[in-house]
Amino acid sequence: MSRATFYTACSLDGFLATKDDSLDWLFRQRIDEDGPMNHGAFMAGVGALVMGATTYAWVVDHGDRTGEPWAYTVPTWVVAHRQFPPTENDVRFVSGDVESWWPGVVDSAGDREIWVVGGGDLAGQIADAGHLDRMLVQYAPVTLGSGRPLLPRVQDFALVDVVRNQDFVCAEFAVVR
Amino acid sequence: MSRATFYTACSLDGFLATKDDSLDWLFRQRIDEDGPMNHGAFMAGVGALVMGATTYAWVVDHGDRTGEPWAYTVPTWVVAHRQFPPTENDVRFVSGDVESWWPGVVDSAGDREIWVVGGGDLAGQIADAGHLDRMLVQYAPVTLGSGRPLLPRVQDFALVDVVRNQDFVCAEFAVVR
Repeated sequence: MSRATFYTACSLDGFLATKDDSLDWLFRQRIDEDGPMNHGAFMAGVGALVMGATTYAWVVDHGDRTGEPWAYTVPTWVVAHRQFPPTENDVRFVSGDVESWWPGVVDSAGDREIWVVGGGDLAGQIADAGHLDRMLVQYAPVTLGSGRPLLPRVQDFALVDVVRNQDFVCAEFAVVR
Repeated sequence: MSRATFYTACSLDGFLATKDDSLDWLFRQRIDEDGPMNHGAFMAGVGALVMGATTYAWVVDHGDRTGEPWAYTVPTWVVAHRQFPPTENDVRFVSGDVESWWPGVVDSAGDREIWVVGGGDLAGQIADAGHLDRMLVQYAPVTLGSGRPLLPRVQDFALVDVVRNQDFVCAEFAVVR
């Protein structure tokens, strides 16, 4: 079975982005792209992506973290109630209850990892449905005071590992069900 | 000069306590009291405490983290607009602007550390005034989704150190001014 991982960066006070979806506070931090818990090593094991409408709109507008317009070659499931322009990328728009589209995500990932990209409420819905296995967080050394919440849920985890990557506190947690 | 440190535990999503000031989610985690960034080693260097009214009321009601009614032998400054019952402990009630009472805190700490106990808004006021030097956070492996915020401010830090202590991600940050 595929493992579903919420892999995300976050402020020290638990925000994925500012209220107006800025990530400037994040991209000015230093990270070793070949260092511990780096994105490339994680992506190498990923077979499918799941993201919400706001996250998808952000990637379409800004490109991915390296500035590429759309760097993902694996199926990307976008959970959205609004319409987006057609795309030539392998993007699959779905909506409604997690159980209605989760089997498709699992099937498309094969035996590889499912990357729950965000946002926090979508990750929470997947956790509520019992499908989230772990969370990998890179904490940037900034507090924002407000913004998009990491995971707006009461949820227990077990700490698996913690490591520093330059400016970031990188931690891996297993979901406790 | 004394160094002022905001030393606190926190949920993974940046809350110091639930909305009703429960810390049950915190005290059920495992920590090695002799391990990295432990409270005793930190306290050994502390010359004065500063806390807000809610934090003080919590300690008076619940005792400190070890269950002792009031374990602190160094001066404790309580920033509060409400009245509290008289106490035989060395508790100094103040109110108003940080600059009006901060010199007293510094003086009482001598050449030792000032522990900014919390809450987050008081730590933020001290940071706004330019008096906060560092933050030590023990992240418990729990998300709460809501509660008392860690530091309701936009504030940059520099990561100094990160280490695991059993269930906790322990990280030290220097305030960037």
